[in-house]
Amino acid sequence: MRVLSGHPDFEVVAVGGRSAKGMKVRDLYPASSSAIGELAFLDTVELMEVIKSESVPLVFLALPHGESQRLVPELLEITSHIIDLAADFRIKDPAQYEYWYGHRHSCPKLLDQAVYGLPELDRSLLKGARLVAVPGCYPTASTLAMAPLIKSGYTKGKVVVDAASGVSGAGRSLRLESLAMSVMEEYRAYSLRTHRHTVEIENNLGVKAVFTPHLVPMKRGILATCYLEPSGSSLKEFSGMSQDDIDGRLLELYESFYDLEPFVKLSSTPPGTASVYGSNNVSISVTYDKRTETFIALGAIDNLTKGAAGQGVQCANLVVGFAEDSGLTQVGVWP
Amino acid sequence: MRVLSGHPDFEVVAVGGRSAKGMKVRDLYPASSSAIGELAFLDTVELMEVIKSESVPLVFLALPHGESQRLVPELLEITSHIIDLAADFRIKDPAQYEYWYGHRHSCPKLLDQAVYGLPELDRSLLKGARLVAVPGCYPTASTLAMAPLIKSGYTKGKVVVDAASGVSGAGRSLRLESLAMSVMEEYRAYSLRTHRHTVEIENNLGVKAVFTPHLVPMKRGILATCYLEPSGSSLKEFSGMSQDDIDGRLLELYESFYDLEPFVKLSSTPPGTASVYGSNNVSISVTYDKRTETFIALGAIDNLTKGAAGQGVQCANLVVGFAEDSGLTQVGVWP
Amino acid sequence: MRVLSGHPDFEVVAVGGRSAKGMKVRDLYPASSSAIGELAFLDTVELMEVIKSESVPLVFLALPHGESQRLVPELLEITSHIIDLAADFRIKDPAQYEYWYGHRHSCPKLLDQAVYGLPELDRSLLKGARLVAVPGCYPTASTLAMAPLIKSGYTKGKVVVDAASGVSGAGRSLRLESLAMSVMEEYRAYSLRTHRHTVEIENNLGVKAVFTPHLVPMKRGILATCYLEPSGSSLKEFSGMSQDDIDGRLLELYESFYDLEPFVKLSSTPPGTASVYGSNNVSISVTYDKRTETFIALGAIDNLTKGAAGQGVQCANLVVGFAEDSGLTQVGVWP
Amino acid sequence: MRVLSGHPDFEVVAVGGRSAKGMKVRDLYPASSSAIGELAFLDTVELMEVIKSESVPLVFLALPHGESQRLVPELLEITSHIIDLAADFRIKDPAQYEYWYGHRHSCPKLLDQAVYGLPELDRSLLKGARLVAVPGCYPTASTLAMAPLIKSGYTKGKVVVDAASGVSGAGRSLRLESLAMSVMEEYRAYSLRTHRHTVEIENNLGVKAVFTPHLVPMKRGILATCYLEPSGSSLKEFSGMSQDDIDGRLLELYESFYDLEPFVKLSSTPPGTASVYGSNNVSISVTYDKRTETFIALGAIDNLTKGAAGQGVQCANLVVGFAEDSGLTQVGVWP
Repeated sequence: MRVLSGHPDFEVVAVGGRSAKGMKVRDLYPASSSAIGELAFLDTVELMEVIKSESVPLVFLALPHGESQRLVPELLEITSHIIDLAADFRIKDPAQYEYWYGHRHSCPKLLDQAVYGLPELDRSLLKGARLVAVPGCYPTASTLAMAPLIKSGYTKGKVVVDAASGVSGAGRSLRLESLAMSVMEEYRAYSLRTHRHTVEIENNLGVKAVFTPHLVPMKRGILATCYLEPSGSSLKEFSGMSQDDIDGRLLELYESFYDLEPFVKLSSTPPGTASVYGSNNVSISVTYDKRTETFIALGAIDNLTKGAAGQGVQCANLVVGFAEDSGLTQVGVWP
Repeated sequence: MRVLSGHPDFEVVAVGGRSAKGMKVRDLYPASSSAIGELAFLDTVELMEVIKSESVPLVFLALPHGESQRLVPELLEITSHIIDLAADFRIKDPAQYEYWYGHRHSCPKLLDQAVYGLPELDRSLLKGARLVAVPGCYPTASTLAMAPLIKSGYTKGKVVVDAASGVSGAGRSLRLESLAMSVMEEYRAYSLRTHRHTVEIENNLGVKAVFTPHLVPMKRGILATCYLEPSGSSLKEFSGMSQDDIDGRLLELYESFYDLEPFVKLSSTPPGTASVYGSNNVSISVTYDKRTETFIALGAIDNLTKGAAGQGVQCANLVVGFAEDSGLTQVGVWP
Repeated sequence: MRVLSGHPDFEVVAVGGRSAKGMKVRDLYPASSSAIGELAFLDTVELMEVIKSESVPLVFLALPHGESQRLVPELLEITSHIIDLAADFRIKDPAQYEYWYGHRHSCPKLLDQAVYGLPELDRSLLKGARLVAVPGCYPTASTLAMAPLIKSGYTKGKVVVDAASGVSGAGRSLRLESLAMSVMEEYRAYSLRTHRHTVEIENNLGVKAVFTPHLVPMKRGILATCYLEPSGSSLKEFSGMSQDDIDGRLLELYESFYDLEPFVKLSSTPPGTASVYGSNNVSISVTYDKRTETFIALGAIDNLTKGAAGQGVQCANLVVGFAEDSGLTQVGVWP
Repeated sequence: MRVLSGHPDFEVVAVGGRSAKGMKVRDLYPASSSAIGELAFLDTVELMEVIKSESVPLVFLALPHGESQRLVPELLEITSHIIDLAADFRIKDPAQYEYWYGHRHSCPKLLDQAVYGLPELDRSLLKGARLVAVPGCYPTASTLAMAPLIKSGYTKGKVVVDAASGVSGAGRSLRLESLAMSVMEEYRAYSLRTHRHTVEIENNLGVKAVFTPHLVPMKRGILATCYLEPSGSSLKEFSGMSQDDIDGRLLELYESFYDLEPFVKLSSTPPGTASVYGSNNVSISVTYDKRTETFIALGAIDNLTKGAAGQGVQCANLVVGFAEDSGLTQVGVWP
């Protein structure tokens, strides 16, 4: 709603939220703009009614994982486009979904129709798409950091993704480990070996991934630090080159790969999360350590913008044919 | 530059910055938009040259206190409007300036011409103004919190302003007490009895003020908690009323005082700094403690937006006749 | 348990905790020392059994407010000394208790027997006391900051206490406003006019108090900034004195009032919370603003140590006759 | 000085500090205990004089890297033991020192005499040692996390160490990137490929290391997340085992390796920095990801205690024959 409140082309018609039913948006989100802030949260039945009666052409879903697959089939009958921020339609293979999410998918035949909404990798399928699965936050940061290397054949074997997120990634659920008392002055890893975003990274890039997320005492932001092994051909290519020359060549590779991308910011120094705070940008850098023969690729995003809502709006823009950056031109709130 | 990068009406022609001369804006501010980010910092001589040769109609000054008074006389000859974010032209009385700032003002005759840029108190003088003194961050938050009470005769005597600011208020100067190591897990008062913003609060409201600023371990945001004594007439008015009725009447007073103000957000619960993060809004609430016969008025702003750059742009909009909220519609980045 | 783990004289025999029953202490408190960490949490019945069978001479209670008054009568029959960290026995007058806590006290006749455990004000009653009510965190910081001024007749009328606390003050209860997402980059006031610690401050000092607590994005620490009006005699005393001379006299007053106190640290500069982090110290400074005729007294504590557990152990030491600072010599963990 | 202020066996005789010459310790470190706080900083000449005249048997050095090698030769003539917290004597090979530190070592022949002070790996050489090089903070956390795996032959090839530190790791030097404004809401990597601690990790474990440090917006704490490849023999050993059985075996390996170590805390869940805050403990866990055939070993320390001063005192205790944990029994200040 924050992103949409500054969007010149979309109009927010209705807002759903079961637990907040009847409250005004601004009661929950004190920062809301006047127009959206005055809307009252509807329950699902009321919301479906509005979508039908007002022929709402596009719906954003931001439900807990597992719930959108129950709503989407019915919703597709009354609206033209669904932008789903949950994980429900991110994976094509039902068996793979079941392995990582621990339950059988309830409408597996929609999995093939859904478009994975990472425009920088493939925006061609988004135009007119009926169901878009917006990627997870960690997969967005790490995939975009590594894609040019892997897709250009520079690497081989598995990758290590060591990533860290601010606390808003855990949402508003009441858990002891999300209390400020538990988070501040604490840096810790979680979900070792088993985080569900692992499979998205692997599918996006066609590699095995060791993925370790960490929690950082800050509100927003994800940085993924990715380690990759060089392929034989890149070892040969780099053999007579200096460290600086290799890094220069890698920067060129990334510049060419992400040419004209509106949200990708490349730099020769390691990116941080502060510079993308509140924006839809992804800040990327890459280096190759000649001494240890290892690539290190880094990607920083705002986990709630490029890592969620902002990317959802970016997809929606492409789906309906608006400018890709419509409503998304805000620069990072820095410092 | 962050605020201007989203401004539809102003175009940034040149950027000055002595210590950064030659660097591009985006080297210092990684979050900058493409257009502004590509500009290179000029030194003062170069900047004056551009202003003259391109007939730049409006200049924002954000110099250390004491320096803009040396530049403004010359600058007024080559540009039409100056929006000065320093304290140099905020005080009308040269003697008062000298008392609080510790040195004689170098162009006292300009003090009378300068307009104090707090539009919510008086926007009538801003239209076409040649020299605008943008208020300090603490005075903005506290003045707007207390103005309806004081200007309506509800109070008497001095006020106590207990306020707290995030670390960006101290700017980028290298001081031991601004290090993260010194700031985190630390809450402390500073500049007791002597903070220079005291005089602005006093002048704005015509009262004596006890002002104690504190430093909070966060990046942005100011909250002013203000304590005021009731006048005899308000004691009489409130004598038969319940606590809730009094608070209801005060809310009405504030709603009437700030009717149609685009940036003032009133609420019946105490405001916090997070909801205005990155926005130009000021969030205000007020209560009267019947038991102790004390008003408590609170105002929250983003110290770098409504407390500095945002308010500067708001003034500039009024000066040249743009919509007052042009470039300032961003809602708070929350959570 | 952290404080007791370094205590040379007390031995922890058993630990109660209903919701954690069966868990080991170190499962909940990963920082625990080996000995205490190996204890398993007992439920109330089991705990009472151990106290009786092992003739445990002293019990610390840290129950939610309202619960210790139900347990204490029975507990007093099987143990010699109770150190209660709840608010249940801090107020002598049952009517006053009911006004602030919203329910009738269940054993009002014990109120008179209970000793309010603020040793710096009166440690004479603590020796051998059977029931000690450990003060609240805010009253500890603010009372100790203001006591020398008020008890020496320097002030008149009500006081304003503007205080701020780190997040651990809210404990481990799962509330939306205690989430890191809600707390970081947020500074806000809460419980205006109605915070229950108000009455403790008023009773300690015999004055009316306007008390406004704030929440700061840090883990530990409270700073109370207190504003007081001068009495006629102090106005007369200060009339011919310079600002510095007055502050010098006030420092002498405080040094004399707190002579030989092991935990009071006086300074001529405003104290912060970082310097007392993890220690039982209270850091105090005072000034008088001649221009506005206002005293400003500041007190900083670690809200979980001098503001709770540390003060409880200090009281326990005095109750049983150990050295007052036994187990409490840890200096602040700084920076 | 914080650690020593609670030490029952060492007495602090004198304190040196050129830039603070003449100031009392408590002016710089407001948390200091009374005794140490009253000492005044001496310059180097004065300090050497005291050491000589009072026959001080042990000296802690905490100088900028490169400076202790200039002082140590002379100091060894007037004191028995030096505990050096700088990097000057951590590396045995002068060429290796020059490669990583960028200048020739000024007394290379002392390199062989110096003992690397990581007691958990080898405490035998510390007893009576004349010159101890206290390890760096990152090497301490990562070496202790990986040592059991590597020294038991479970791994092969290079290791990836992805680590993050709180801001106190950067010390008190005034740098733009150490300002709170630059650090809060920022998570970023730095010194990619080139951090000087890399060589310590490599020397400690006899492996090549890819080491990427990150800066976390917190005051204290380091967590090292380490990735290692399995050797052929461990692949064979694990082939028929379940994930849980493998992790159980690894925990046994670590328990056996660190049996009776006073400061090593093993756990089956990933450690965080908060639980070791202010303590000399290192919290370690390990897992093996069967799916990707990768070990993940994690180590958390307080970078200023086990990562610096605490480890220095631990070494000093061993050097002179005190109990190894003398003065170091403080548990973590948690939460």
